[in-house]
Amino acid sequence: MTFAATILTLYPEMFPGPLRQSIAGRALEEQKWSCDTIQIRDFATDKHRTVDDTPAGGGAGMVLKADVLASAVDHAVARQPKTPILAMTPRGKPITQERIREIAGGPGVIILCGRFEGFDERLFEARPQIEQVSLADIVLSGGEPAALAILDACIRLLPGVMGAPSSGTEESFEDGLLEYPQYTRPQEWEGRTIPEVLRSGDHAKIAAWRKARSEDDTRLRRPDLWERHGGTPGPSASGAQRKK
Amino acid sequence: MTFAATILTLYPEMFPGPLRQSIAGRALEEQKWSCDTIQIRDFATDKHRTVDDTPAGGGAGMVLKADVLASAVDHAVARQPKTPILAMTPRGKPITQERIREIAGGPGVIILCGRFEGFDERLFEARPQIEQVSLADIVLSGGEPAALAILDACIRLLPGVMGAPSSGTEESFEDGLLEYPQYTRPQEWEGRTIPEVLRSGDHAKIAAWRKARSEDDTRLRRPDLWERHGGTPGPSASGAQRKK
Repeated sequence: MTFAATILTLYPEMFPGPLRQSIAGRALEEQKWSCDTIQIRDFATDKHRTVDDTPAGGGAGMVLKADVLASAVDHAVARQPKTPILAMTPRGKPITQERIREIAGGPGVIILCGRFEGFDERLFEARPQIEQVSLADIVLSGGEPAALAILDACIRLLPGVMGAPSSGTEESFEDGLLEYPQYTRPQEWEGRTIPEVLRSGDHAKIAAWRKARSEDDTRLRRPDLWERHGGTPGPSASGAQRKK
Repeated sequence: MTFAATILTLYPEMFPGPLRQSIAGRALEEQKWSCDTIQIRDFATDKHRTVDDTPAGGGAGMVLKADVLASAVDHAVARQPKTPILAMTPRGKPITQERIREIAGGPGVIILCGRFEGFDERLFEARPQIEQVSLADIVLSGGEPAALAILDACIRLLPGVMGAPSSGTEESFEDGLLEYPQYTRPQEWEGRTIPEVLRSGDHAKIAAWRKARSEDDTRLRRPDLWERHGGTPGPSASGAQRKK
């Protein structure tokens, strides 16, 4: 089954863009996903093909018109009725790996990319099935770079896309924690060696060390994730193991 | 002055990619920023140009070698000595608009993109000037889509890049809050009208309404941001204004 991605944008030439390369590019060639764009401007109703207008109440920038966007969204939904619709906006809910996994397990995704000062809010009132999603707490010039990141995250999870089947499950965020640090050859580099335990061949010890490092790093680097994970602040349970 | 972006990657053809279009594309043509790539593979030392190896201690996937990456980073730093170096990794510190603004105010940025299972941790021990940065709590196939988003966020803030000079300051995250909702013509659409206050022409009232909506939406949608902003949970201060 092909995961059908449709992007509503004023810049269709940005897609698939970087997703034509590497893992996503191979998956595209193998038709594991498809990449369709819809030019929002095609749904404008005046001869100037206007998609935006000045903000009601004043202010800088331009706002994308609800009527034009709703027509574009309705068109996409008619083609893919049971597909989630995301609108990329800094006012949205932060995307999570859990939601990415849900989307990747479905038939595809429709992503609406804004530009300028954003969308006329009535679009979301009138089309409540649109999920307002934020990629990160930064402001982009438009939703397109965010859509590329979301698509990349979905595509790598599609069946048969990643090399090793376990690669998708033992990594950052999948269990609510950061991934443990990784090491590889050379054994010694600039006077720094790979932690002893990783060379022990003792799988239980290695697993315990990795779990402890994963927990430690999450608590230290991402107290927000650690708290959601149900962890408590305080001294490391694995302090001894960190002194290597 | 040109903002000099250098990306260390195994996929240099992904850049400038989507940043060749729209706002970033015009800024690139006008030499407000430059986009340079460094192929990490050029710093491999064996005849197979190996950049990765199996994880010490076992596990799926491949780990990028510290020695090869350090050589690539050292090369980039020698060319741009006073430039921040970010490594995109889900183990990093979440990027913020504040950090984007700092970077955009500097000479440029060097971004190191990982692939596979990530970097040999010794790279960060041996080159502590590298900032480990995370874009979002999702896992990408590599750092490249994240680097594109970070660059886009920086470029739009460069002097002369955005149309209206105020566009950069009154928006989501700039004051620790989400931006207020926007509306534009038509006045009525699908039975929904633009909020009365925005048509009043009373600038003080409009500003107060926008501030209240900004605070309300942040509290409801992003309790995490609201808490950092110093807000308290509880009933809306602007409840009356929401009933429109």
